Order: sequence, then C-alpha cells, then structure tokens
Amino acid sequence: MAKASDTNRHVDIGSKAGVEPGEGRFPLGDFVLRSGATLRGVTLAFKTHGSLNADKSNAVIYPTSYGAHHSDIEWPIGPGKALDPERYFIVVPDMLGNGLSSSPSNMPPPQDRAHFPRVTVLDNVIAQHRLVAEGLGISRIALVVGWSMGAQQTFQWAASHPEMVERIAPFCGTARTTAHNFVFLEGIKAALTADAAWKDGMYEDQPARGIRAFARVYAGWGFSQPFYRQELYRQLGFSSLEDFLVGFWERRFLRRDANNLLSMLWTWQHNDLGATPGCDGSLEQALGSIRAKALVMAGETDLYFTPEDIRYEASCIPGAEFRVIPSVWGHQAGNGLNPVDSRFIDQALKGLLAA
Amino acid sequence: MAKASDTNRHVDIGSKAGVEPGEGRFPLGDFVLRSGATLRGVTLAFKTHGSLNADKSNAVIYPTSYGAHHSDIEWPIGPGKALDPERYFIVVPDMLGNGLSSSPSNMPPPQDRAHFPRVTVLDNVIAQHRLVAEGLGISRIALVVGWSMGAQQTFQWAASHPEMVERIAPFCGTARTTAHNFVFLEGIKAALTADAAWKDGMYEDQPARGIRAFARVYAGWGFSQPFYRQELYRQLGFSSLEDFLVGFWERRFLRRDANNLLSMLWTWQHNDLGATPGCDGSLEQALGSIRAKALVMAGETDLYFTPEDIRYEASCIPGAEFRVIPSVWGHQAGNGLNPVDSRFIDQALKGLLAA
Repeated sequence: MAKASDTNRHVDIGSKAGVEPGEGRFPLGDFVLRSGATLRGVTLAFKTHGSLNADKSNAVIYPTSYGAHHSDIEWPIGPGKALDPERYFIVVPDMLGNGLSSSPSNMPPPQDRAHFPRVTVLDNVIAQHRLVAEGLGISRIALVVGWSMGAQQTFQWAASHPEMVERIAPFCGTARTTAHNFVFLEGIKAALTADAAWKDGMYEDQPARGIRAFARVYAGWGFSQPFYRQELYRQLGFSSLEDFLVGFWERRFLRRDANNLLSMLWTWQHNDLGATPGCDGSLEQALGSIRAKALVMAGETDLYFTPEDIRYEASCIPGAEFRVIPSVWGHQAGNGLNPVDSRFIDQALKGLLAA
Repeated sequence: MAKASDTNRHVDIGSKAGVEPGEGRFPLGDFVLRSGATLRGVTLAFKTHGSLNADKSNAVIYPTSYGAHHSDIEWPIGPGKALDPERYFIVVPDMLGNGLSSSPSNMPPPQDRAHFPRVTVLDNVIAQHRLVAEGLGISRIALVVGWSMGAQQTFQWAASHPEMVERIAPFCGTARTTAHNFVFLEGIKAALTADAAWKDGMYEDQPARGIRAFARVYAGWGFSQPFYRQELYRQLGFSSLEDFLVGFWERRFLRRDANNLLSMLWTWQHNDLGATPGCDGSLEQALGSIRAKALVMAGETDLYFTPEDIRYEASCIPGAEFRVIPSVWGHQAGNGLNPVDSRFIDQALKGLLAA
C-alpha cells in the first residue's frame, strides 16, 4: 500500500530553519490549546515570499486550506500578481494537522496518530500570531487572505487582532461552519472511517480504500453541477469523468495521511468565530468587532460555503464589501484552477491592497 | 448485526397473488434483459389501490423510487387526493432490486447477491408493461407519475408506449442521469463498499458500517443547505442534527440490503432515455417522441436532480409544462414529508388529471 507523502514522523521541509525567510519551522514549545490540552514540542511550518520592508508595513498572511501544504496554494503569489513578492512580504503558515506543521502523522508518542489532540481555528491563529509577532517581529499586517479553511483563519485573525490587521480578504469560506457544511463533512468522514484498515486511527499503512471513498464523495461537493454538465474537467487535462475522479480527487487525497485529514476535518467542523474570547459565543458580535477593511468573496456555485451564508456573515462586518465570483467551478473557483476566476480574485485583491 | 428487512430470500408480501388487486406478485418467468442476460424466475411485486372501471380508462401507474417499497410512497394516494382510489385504479409496481420484486437479496443462486444481473430503467418498464397489459388487461393509462427514480420510469413509460400513456407527471427526476448526479452516486457507492464487511457483495451479515456511511453521505445531498440552516428536521420530530442523521438517514438505509442498494444505484447511474429502441441514442429524440400530456416538476433546491437539468428535458417534450416546486426541502420536496410541498404536488396532479 502506498505511503502518503506526509506520513514521515520527522518532517524536514527545507534548509532554512527558524525565523529566516524561505521555508522554515517555528518552534512553539509546549503549546496550550484553548481546550486546556497541551500539545508538546509544537512546530509551525511556514514559507515566506519577498522581504519585510524597513517600516515593517508590507506583511501579508496567507494561511493554508484543507489538506494543503504551503506549496499547494501559491497561485496568487508572483511578480505582477496581487501578492507580489517584490512589494509584499508574504507569510504562508501551515495549518496544524496538515502534515508539515505538528500533525498526527509527525508527532512522536504519546500524541501521535489518533492521540493527536483536537485543534481549533483559534488555536491555529494563536500559534500563527506567535510566529508573526515573536518570530518575525511584525506588529502590523497589511492583509490577511485565505481560501476555504484559509478564510476561516482570516476571519479569526481579524477578530482576534483588530489592532494589527489592516485588511482581510476571506474567500469561499465562512466564519462559522454551517449545519449543512457539517453534514457534508460527516459524509466524507464516515466514508473514510468505514474502511476497517483505518483501525480507529492506529493504522501503519494508510486506509487507502477509505481515502478513495472520501475523495469520491468530496468530488461531488468540490465542483458544481454545471461544472460536471459542461465537462470542464477536460480543461484540467482529464480525459473522462472517471479519469478526473481518480487523477484529480483520489490522487489529491491519497498523498495525505488519514489522521491528518480527520484532524483538519474536526477543526473545520468546529470552526466558530463566536468562540473568540470576549464575544459571548456570538458570531455576530465577533464579526462586528472586526476593524479591518474587509472584502469578502463567495463562489457563485459553491455547494458548501454558499453565497447566502457568506453574504450574511459579510453583512455583520462593519463596512465590509461582499462580492460574488461569477463561476461554475463551485468551491474550486478559489483554488487557482482556471484563469478567469483567478484573474477575478487577483483583481479584487489588488483593489483591496490599493485602498 | 441487524438483518435488513429485505434480506429474506423468499419474499411473501401478501395474501393476494397474481393479478388480483391488492398486494401481489406477477410472475414474469425467465426474463431476458436488454443487455442479453436472462434473469430467471422473475417476479414483479406490486400493490393496487381502487378498482379498474368498466371501460378500463382509470389506470394510474406509480412506480417506486430509490430504496422504496410500494408501501413507502403512498402519501399521494387516498380519498380526496389526486390519486383517489374512489376514482382511479392505481398500480404501484416495485422496482427490480428493491427487495420485493426480484432482487439480489431474494434471488436463489446462481443469481443471488453480487451475481444479480444489472437491470436498467427500460428493463423495469418492459416488466411493468407486461404486468399492466398481460396481467391486468389494461391498454390505456390515464397517468404515469413518479418521484425521483419513479420519474425515470415515468419518462420511460411515455417514450416506450406513446400510444398507451395519456398523461405523465415525472417530478424531481431526469430522463437521463447527469454527470454530477453520477458523481454523487459514486460517492455513496464508494462509502458503502469501503467497508470490508461488504465482501464484494458476498456478505452474510449486512455491512452496517458501510451502510451508515452511505446514509451519512446521502444526508447532505437529500435536503438543501437552507433546510439544514433552518433546522427543518425538527419539523420531522428529530431533536438534533445528529438525531436526524441517525434516526432518519441511517435508519432509512439500515433497513435495506446492501446489494439491493447497489443494484438500484447502478440502474440509476445508467439511466438514459436515449437508449430507448428507435431513438438512435438521442435523449432529445426520445423526449421528442413523447405524446402524453406532460407536467414535469422540479424541486427548487434539489441538489442532484436540478431544476436546470429538468427544465431542459421538459423543453424537449412536445407541449410539456414545466413547474418548479417552491421549497427548501431539496430533493425530498417530492417525498411527502411536509404538507406544503405535498399540497403543491397534489394540486398539480389534480390539474393534470382534470385536463
């Protein structure tokens, strides 16, 4: 059975360590989660692009999405793009559980595999804040931007650090996971864990059959009905529907570790900006506390982060602009897969950064 | 492990046999499928309501939906309703594979379980036509009506027997399965078969873990995002989201046999009215050949039989009326679960029958 690429217990992701620009790992030591559990010997993986300017005013934080490594989401970064390394110092922190930062797959016992504690979006942002403030010496952030689970972390950054975050651009994600989105995630979780080879998370070999099932269920949600109707997977180089299900979806998740996928899934299911300290459990209060200039975007045909849900949340943020990405690519409109949607998002980010 | 209610190898569904009204079974003998395979010793289960009138002009055919038995879909039947047994002779034929008609769960070897041959919607309608024409002596049908997979069979009735079918009312279903719908079904199939207890269909005990996963994936598709947002499952008597996932979805499918579910799933995935003999593989030609007065309905928020797909197909049927059921109940708008949607459908059927 194939090993997932992120199952190595000891990750070495680059030659540059600590807080130097480039790929790096930031040691957080023993990190107390909001739940009260302590994750011991935590490291946060990250990658930076560009350089911090003299007055430290050009930092952009761009957290990772579900199942992604920092290298998977670089499409909006580059010369001439909104996230231009010539102008901005872009920090891409890897989510806890993604296989590069501390994760079920790389933690030593006793917190390895199924014993990895549950981590929230808020925990992630607390860890990222330490990287940014202590590690990189940044006290002002020009922009926090993220897609999907990256959007969840973006909302959290703005609510947790209103004095620090100047702009946010969360897209195709919500500040609180909706009930329907929760059910979609229940489905992919049940599909993965239906495989007895999962062994309640204590497998040695990946439960590949369960991961394939997980991927096949995900496929229906990730793109929209018209995407499939128009066979747009052919634009991505796939020769047939089955080729797409195997070559895009199964391949995407077979690279990953099952416990890592389940860890991030729990984080997603339990995402709730209302749990921000001082917000009394109120989503509306948390969104209302945001002071950053906000551009909130939704994919027109996104099946789980729906435009309706995102529009409502945007309406709770003072002065926020809500914009719909006109696309039939569903949730994947925000994943840099097609030039039209990518240009739309790039233009939007450029406008926000110029403001 | 609990036995599914339709795993008995020898079904006895009622005291009335043959072609008498009531619950019955119609023997088809050795039935040659369109694929060329022969299904040996086939019986078609059915139930009738009301009586055939003197000139045999009041027959209504109402085929079953996915996973349903004839007793599960009786909500539109009753005094004062559109399908009034005082006025109409309503025949509800059970789909092949549903556990009452010949199915993987009740066929003797060598066509038992995983060895049950693949059956199409057209095969079903050929079998049903023999029941109706030979068994019941009916040559004229006032209405064929069906929800979901029942709609698939409705389209097929109209295309295969244009001289016989006066009216059709397919709702929340398509004449050809779309690519996205196919992917949704791939997901639930992969979830079920990820359970090693499935044993490639040769299990003795039901693969309950796989069936639960199947059900949990289905849950996200069966209702709409706003249904979950508004917690409308409470109207169905469920106390929480988890209670709904277990009490509605898992319960619904744990009653069923895994091979039966997979058999009907194959039928659904491969549904294509264009395969009607004489139509050159053309969906449009098959729909264009329909002579029945057609009222085609779609659920406004149906996630897999989308209004867009159904509208297109309706536009190919000469003189067809297309109507949207204004509902946030998703695909389940057509399943008789809430009085508003049920009344909408009932009124529509009454109008069609009066025409």
